[in-house]
Amino acid sequence: MSNIQKKEQSNLDVALFALLLDHSHSASLQAQLTEALRSLLLSGSDYSGTRLPASRVLAQELSVSRTTVVGAYDQLISEGYFKTMVGSGTFVAENLPHLVPPVQKSVAPPETPQAWLPFHSGVPEQTLFPHRVWSRHVERAWARPSDGLLGRADPFGWYPLRQAISAHLKAWRKLDCQAEQIVITSGASEAFEIIFRGFLGPKQTAVVEDPGWPLMRDVLDAVGTKVHLVRIDQHGLDAARINHPGSAAIVTPSRHYPTGISMPLSRRMALLAWAERHDALIVEDDYDSEFRYQGHPLPSLAGLDSLKRSIYLGSFSKLLSPALRIGYLVVPDSLLPSAQRYMSRFGSRASLIPQPALASFMDSGAFAVHLRRMRRTYAKRQSHLISELAGCADLLDLSPDPSGMHICAALRLKLQKTTTDKAITDAAFKEGLHLKALSSHSVLPDPPQGLVLGYAAFNETELSQGAQKLSRLLGQFSNTLR
Amino acid sequence: MSNIQKKEQSNLDVALFALLLDHSHSASLQAQLTEALRSLLLSGSDYSGTRLPASRVLAQELSVSRTTVVGAYDQLISEGYFKTMVGSGTFVAENLPHLVPPVQKSVAPPETPQAWLPFHSGVPEQTLFPHRVWSRHVERAWARPSDGLLGRADPFGWYPLRQAISAHLKAWRKLDCQAEQIVITSGASEAFEIIFRGFLGPKQTAVVEDPGWPLMRDVLDAVGTKVHLVRIDQHGLDAARINHPGSAAIVTPSRHYPTGISMPLSRRMALLAWAERHDALIVEDDYDSEFRYQGHPLPSLAGLDSLKRSIYLGSFSKLLSPALRIGYLVVPDSLLPSAQRYMSRFGSRASLIPQPALASFMDSGAFAVHLRRMRRTYAKRQSHLISELAGCADLLDLSPDPSGMHICAALRLKLQKTTTDKAITDAAFKEGLHLKALSSHSVLPDPPQGLVLGYAAFNETELSQGAQKLSRLLGQFSNTLR
Repeated sequence: MSNIQKKEQSNLDVALFALLLDHSHSASLQAQLTEALRSLLLSGSDYSGTRLPASRVLAQELSVSRTTVVGAYDQLISEGYFKTMVGSGTFVAENLPHLVPPVQKSVAPPETPQAWLPFHSGVPEQTLFPHRVWSRHVERAWARPSDGLLGRADPFGWYPLRQAISAHLKAWRKLDCQAEQIVITSGASEAFEIIFRGFLGPKQTAVVEDPGWPLMRDVLDAVGTKVHLVRIDQHGLDAARINHPGSAAIVTPSRHYPTGISMPLSRRMALLAWAERHDALIVEDDYDSEFRYQGHPLPSLAGLDSLKRSIYLGSFSKLLSPALRIGYLVVPDSLLPSAQRYMSRFGSRASLIPQPALASFMDSGAFAVHLRRMRRTYAKRQSHLISELAGCADLLDLSPDPSGMHICAALRLKLQKTTTDKAITDAAFKEGLHLKALSSHSVLPDPPQGLVLGYAAFNETELSQGAQKLSRLLGQFSNTLR
Repeated sequence: MSNIQKKEQSNLDVALFALLLDHSHSASLQAQLTEALRSLLLSGSDYSGTRLPASRVLAQELSVSRTTVVGAYDQLISEGYFKTMVGSGTFVAENLPHLVPPVQKSVAPPETPQAWLPFHSGVPEQTLFPHRVWSRHVERAWARPSDGLLGRADPFGWYPLRQAISAHLKAWRKLDCQAEQIVITSGASEAFEIIFRGFLGPKQTAVVEDPGWPLMRDVLDAVGTKVHLVRIDQHGLDAARINHPGSAAIVTPSRHYPTGISMPLSRRMALLAWAERHDALIVEDDYDSEFRYQGHPLPSLAGLDSLKRSIYLGSFSKLLSPALRIGYLVVPDSLLPSAQRYMSRFGSRASLIPQPALASFMDSGAFAVHLRRMRRTYAKRQSHLISELAGCADLLDLSPDPSGMHICAALRLKLQKTTTDKAITDAAFKEGLHLKALSSHSVLPDPPQGLVLGYAAFNETELSQGAQKLSRLLGQFSNTLR
């Protein structure tokens, strides 16, 4: 049997076994079945030559007597729709010219895969991901799943994954926490919902960095949290400039998003003191600190605070793949009861399918090997991009960034005199480049001007081509007075 | 090398490669590295006998010169922490008796797997799930992922899965829709958020059945939607009793949750007319209609409406496994732009990992085979449970339910005179039975009294034992006047 025939066979079986006859209806069951079978042949699918299920099997599936099925089959044989082959069963007749399939409803073609455009930020290189190794981890976890995977799921997520994350944070982020403090999420937007709905309650105010992450502001808006924006300076957020008794501050101290600024220790201490004074929470969003190429990273802010009033947010979207939809929260002991209540009530949104595989992938060391490999790759890509853009050094501040997956290049005054970062990104988009304007991350007036250039997901050829296009474009902009 | 040694090796490598030295710090890099290595040996992990990475490799990973690493290794060799074996490299010395591991922070033991207690409802039988077949589908999808899986993900989900769901709905639910109308979600609670945040906006009122699903009311509450409760009767929700111009009605017409009542055609037409009159949406939550054992199901309400003002909600949690966290919305064409805006903004929360596997699992026919198998299994389990409880027929209304995964047995007057459904479920919980009280699904006064008994996830022995305990308990309650 060919694959196509097998597929038609399976489709016919599915359609037949899904038939439901009305036992209370006045028409006899046999007449209903005959009519249903006839409609099926007229439904547009080409079942000619397909074998029908044995009458005994169909009778059992439809909860009718075998006589009913045999009667219906016989009727359709006499009408020429079906034919019998002795010893092989009953088949849909071939060459039924009056069974013209009806015109199909027009179906839009499936979207073609969308490639990432050069300079799209926040996307990891996925062609270097160890797909075969990963797929074996998934297969092994689910071929004979352990009892724990089939029983009542812990609303905080798969315990061995939480253990693996705890070990990772200890080694890479100097954050000492127990697996019990880790809550697996489907990513940052769910994490913010858990924090603002589950820990803080309605109508609270969150202090938020400006510029900052637009999605995060959208989530706060959607859950009804008020936002108090504070413009950052060259050292990130300054607690002295928070003039509102917010109930939480959401910060990216390791690497401010999107500028890449690292908050120095004095600022961190000041922020913790502010939180202490206002009995506020600190939410540390640490999104790609693992990709540090040089220098000495400060330990996580949550580690500095020993997780007393800090919540730490991490994700595997940038470290491994956005396809996972796996992130996590590290929660202070004092908030664990609230987290338990919230997660038990609303349930986890993180799929369990990747969780045991991710745990064993981390435990095996494959995760650390991959991170180190990507660290080397991204470091090279960043220097390549910067050297390819060297001709624009009078227009853009192209200082190397000691970490991350993108650079945020401030527009120099010369360029700011002739254009805006948004005009550049709009023009670049028409050329097939997906940069982001730094100012589009701001809400407060007079936003800083710069270009966010993602390099992680693009090889050196792609980066060179993108850099050429961008250089040409910037040249045009710098020669046009606005 | 044994597995344990391999694991220690990998742990040591991870710890070493994660070291970060401060290039700006006054202490020399070599002194920093020596100190870091020394601390690592004292950290509590037993690395004795583990090989250190080659100095060239570690130098590259840490971005220091090879001389720095060789210097640090030499220092620790002279101190006796490391030893060299000519031709094989440098190793952590064994028998370092002064390296007593520090006392470990006490760690709560991992939770043991939680089994489902008898009569827990809404849980499918997972031991009959074709795990090996499923795990091969996952493995195949990700061993060499197609470009589409690695590119920019469609925020509505993996297209072939949406096609498979469209085919399933056509065959099983008489719902004719295009794959383009399907949005993959992480389950019903996200689906309600998309509808109420994305389609209706803040401060709208939703008409909700009473009794109904408590989680759904919680989600509406969390997103700020007002709830107008309408008590159902023996035919489900009656549009004539809706005395509020709500902007949506959320209904379970195929099988009211939790009573199992099916809404007759006249009521469905009246509800659609109500929606037309008030320009309201109908949200049809269809959670386990595939498990129908007899009789003639009405087509889906959304199908009756041709998806003009109806949104259809489905999920694989009950059909396959709650571990998937995969559900879906079917959206009227008129709402597709709103859906596109919302999903592009907030992103999908459904993991992509199970999606291609689920699509091929459905296309292969394995899904339909599994549904049919479970349909037979659940039908048998339901009749077994009802016959095992036959002795309580004077206390509970044990009418068979033509579909579903639980029965909702009303308390007869005799039992209502002596107790409440909540008193019974509380007492049953102490005996290890997890029934739900029908009244706990109500908010309006004078709720109906009944017991929700899940049978799907329990074999006949478990059901018999549970039924025995429950019968004994009900006997005690009926003999005690309250």
